[in-house]
Amino acid sequence: MTNQVFFGSFVHTPTLDTIEYLHDTIVAVEAKGTILAVESLPPIGRHNPLAWIRATLVPSLGWEANTPITATRPGQFFFPGFIDTHLHASQYPNVGIFGKSTLLDWLNKYTFPLEASLRDLAKARRVYGRCIRKTLSHGTTTAAYYATVDVPATNLLADLCLHAGQRALVGRVCMDQHAFSPDYYRDETPEEAEAATRACMDHIARIDPEHKLLRPVLTPRFAPSCTPDLLGRLGRLHKEGNWPIQTHISENRDEIALVKDLFKDTVPPCKGAEDGLPSYAGVYDHFGLLTPQTILAHGVHLTEAEASLIRDRGSKVSHCPCSNSAITSGAARVRWLLDRGIEVGLGTDMSGGYSPSILEAARLASLVSRHVAMGGDDAAKLSVEEVLFLATVGGAHVVGMGDRLGLFRPGMLWDAQLIGLGMVDANGNTSTGNEDDPAAMTNGTGAAAATEEDVGQMLVEDTNVDVFGWETWEDRIAKWLFNGDDRNTKKVWVNGRLVHDRSAPLFGAPAANGADDVETVSP
Amino acid sequence: MTNQVFFGSFVHTPTLDTIEYLHDTIVAVEAKGTILAVESLPPIGRHNPLAWIRATLVPSLGWEANTPITATRPGQFFFPGFIDTHLHASQYPNVGIFGKSTLLDWLNKYTFPLEASLRDLAKARRVYGRCIRKTLSHGTTTAAYYATVDVPATNLLADLCLHAGQRALVGRVCMDQHAFSPDYYRDETPEEAEAATRACMDHIARIDPEHKLLRPVLTPRFAPSCTPDLLGRLGRLHKEGNWPIQTHISENRDEIALVKDLFKDTVPPCKGAEDGLPSYAGVYDHFGLLTPQTILAHGVHLTEAEASLIRDRGSKVSHCPCSNSAITSGAARVRWLLDRGIEVGLGTDMSGGYSPSILEAARLASLVSRHVAMGGDDAAKLSVEEVLFLATVGGAHVVGMGDRLGLFRPGMLWDAQLIGLGMVDANGNTSTGNEDDPAAMTNGTGAAAATEEDVGQMLVEDTNVDVFGWETWEDRIAKWLFNGDDRNTKKVWVNGRLVHDRSAPLFGAPAANGADDVETVSP
Repeated sequence: MTNQVFFGSFVHTPTLDTIEYLHDTIVAVEAKGTILAVESLPPIGRHNPLAWIRATLVPSLGWEANTPITATRPGQFFFPGFIDTHLHASQYPNVGIFGKSTLLDWLNKYTFPLEASLRDLAKARRVYGRCIRKTLSHGTTTAAYYATVDVPATNLLADLCLHAGQRALVGRVCMDQHAFSPDYYRDETPEEAEAATRACMDHIARIDPEHKLLRPVLTPRFAPSCTPDLLGRLGRLHKEGNWPIQTHISENRDEIALVKDLFKDTVPPCKGAEDGLPSYAGVYDHFGLLTPQTILAHGVHLTEAEASLIRDRGSKVSHCPCSNSAITSGAARVRWLLDRGIEVGLGTDMSGGYSPSILEAARLASLVSRHVAMGGDDAAKLSVEEVLFLATVGGAHVVGMGDRLGLFRPGMLWDAQLIGLGMVDANGNTSTGNEDDPAAMTNGTGAAAATEEDVGQMLVEDTNVDVFGWETWEDRIAKWLFNGDDRNTKKVWVNGRLVHDRSAPLFGAPAANGADDVETVSP
Repeated sequence: MTNQVFFGSFVHTPTLDTIEYLHDTIVAVEAKGTILAVESLPPIGRHNPLAWIRATLVPSLGWEANTPITATRPGQFFFPGFIDTHLHASQYPNVGIFGKSTLLDWLNKYTFPLEASLRDLAKARRVYGRCIRKTLSHGTTTAAYYATVDVPATNLLADLCLHAGQRALVGRVCMDQHAFSPDYYRDETPEEAEAATRACMDHIARIDPEHKLLRPVLTPRFAPSCTPDLLGRLGRLHKEGNWPIQTHISENRDEIALVKDLFKDTVPPCKGAEDGLPSYAGVYDHFGLLTPQTILAHGVHLTEAEASLIRDRGSKVSHCPCSNSAITSGAARVRWLLDRGIEVGLGTDMSGGYSPSILEAARLASLVSRHVAMGGDDAAKLSVEEVLFLATVGGAHVVGMGDRLGLFRPGMLWDAQLIGLGMVDANGNTSTGNEDDPAAMTNGTGAAAATEEDVGQMLVEDTNVDVFGWETWEDRIAKWLFNGDDRNTKKVWVNGRLVHDRSAPLFGAPAANGADDVETVSP
């Protein structure tokens, strides 16, 4: 890896309700991927920015004369990488396949059989490899992954993330509760579950000792799948190294009733609860699993008492709107959570959610917030700025990296994406953001590049975002949020390394990184 | 135009809750675009279907020996063209731009200024041309368009649809009510509104005398924008030629209150209504606008009495889930409408809705139905089959062409799309559905075609739908519904004419049709 300079337009969300547009800006990234400086181009450099950067800025940093400089073109901007705070890599082949099911029957019918089948490492390699490639192509630079119960397959997921260069929390699924874990797919005892979890943690420590990309995450599937003994062991294991924890909470009403029933003899009743039963959050807290390192997926039906407890413990919530709507779990009240001081990020929750895209999760967070508003709370609506904040800065806090990810700031890591929107300017001139790259002006079929004259005012780039040229930057970001997809994600970097490039054959990582085929890594 | 044969897999929805899969099937389409026959390949032809079709079937029809045959490849199927029963071509540049607005402020802030600006015909040409290209690229073979108040711009939209080959209902917007039409954008008098409407109808009769592609549609914007005089004139005009009518109904609660107030002195109270005021549907009915040819967009908050009236009149509803969620109108109860015997189709409602895609409308119809179900009515959930039925057969009935569109049946028109899903088979062999077309195996950047050996198990086609190969056909259709986009829509035909081809440069219509640049048509 080498030092790098990025130049042009940068867009990020410093606070929940603001977007900052940095134009004519220089971001210097040192070889290990940390942002060294974010500065405006000085007036003296404006005549020829790239020449000025190379002749003046690069030497002033003491960097090599041939330091790579990546610049945005018209219609392009850098945006922080997306953070997917909750997804099941093992369920990726089932995206879109859920029928009319809801959580508990969905698990038994679609999910457990698929997860169990990934004991076959050849199958796991295909599934995980394609999940990583697909999420990277949608700009996901950090993913909090559930794998399966199986140790070798979970270790393979970690290997593949490391090789592909995706930042990941990798969790081996813990589930030993016979009441809600099928015979064919579970940990046989709490002891075995703990040992298997430690084996995966050891593997990650071995392949990424400094945790530059990977961290293990303790993953009690969800309370109904775990015995009290296992939850207690995981709580103690957390304390050993302040390890991250991920689990599900309060996704579905039947699930909540099941939790109360399963733990009514083990966990004290929730204080003030009319039913005299423990709360879902109270169960996790009882076993030491409600910590500042804890990611709680869903939280659709949390009570005020639970929200207070979660806030007091500093735990975070992963909002998964696509999943919550698709399997009819409910409409999570994100504004309500934020107002209570709980940090929130977004999750695709594949395959409860059908989409691999955090941009789509942001879009659906916007829609679901409007469905909450239809219930009478107009303040529930989330703005463009707010959902993009949740997709980046919010997610960074949820995965415990709020100080390193989510913004273009000195000291943060260069986990970023280059976004390109096809545009036609107000005079009808085309500007694809790739106008000096003829190869980029074809249409997905290898046809010869078109000239400007041929193009007229037709679509000039394969994109679902039509920019006419008169739009403000705010309008363009809104258009990207609502109609953008992986075609707009031109390049993706993690720790300064280019890990996805749509201009590379077959979307492989660039050959220069020696990682053009994720299939070549050995398990 | 010439006779054509289509061969391979055909998928359609004969009833609301069934999908039919026709494999090894032959569809013969005569030169004017009507389906002549739909037949299974006989056993004798299975050894070499294309040779058998050419040697035996084509001569048996008395057709030329060089009759074109289009066959699906692995992973491909023909699907009926989508029908967008409600969209505003004039609002296309605003897709995704709506902030936190709701209907009435959204109209004043975003919509009226843009629509008014399309008096500039150069601007209208850009906007309409791109809207048509974009919707065709998403498989929309029929669109019920709102244009603007302006006659020349509306006529231009009709010209452009005819040239591009998209079937369309084209409506000049009628709005003369000062209470809710801005000074800078309205019909000055009811007489002028009627005359302008007739001028657009005459133009369509001139350019497409047999209405092979185009029909005019009477378009009172919505009740709050129209005087009683104008509504009465349009009701009488409808009777002259049984012309289609399109308008909005019961989208937003403030709008409903406005209608009741504006028409309380003109229209009798709704029978049995506690408020002693007319109902929204009652207003249209009073003026003779509730007919079997009427398309009512939205219908989110209809009462039982209104639903009965609409059913009795045989009027149809265009469900626009994307719009209803985006501008916080409400969650329309599609099951409730269907149960009351009302025919329903889908609309993108750009730009209240942000997406140009009816596939996305179907996806969101599924999600919104689950939000309705969350309110307690579990039967509200719409299945994959049901939303695809609404997108095709349902839409055909809504636009008054249920006997000609929506299914692969003799006597129906060949308005169809070729869908391709990238696939990898269970043995890990790639099968893109384009394997004998090397150009189709590049990645959108003009890079050289990859060989099977290079590809391994990586993504082999630029698609958001990952098919692993073990999926059933039902699973594949679900994957397409939930993650598909315009990249999966390989070719589109209307009346048998190829009107969109992703393998053509820049997505222009095929040059062979002489329509490769919609910009060359004269207004």
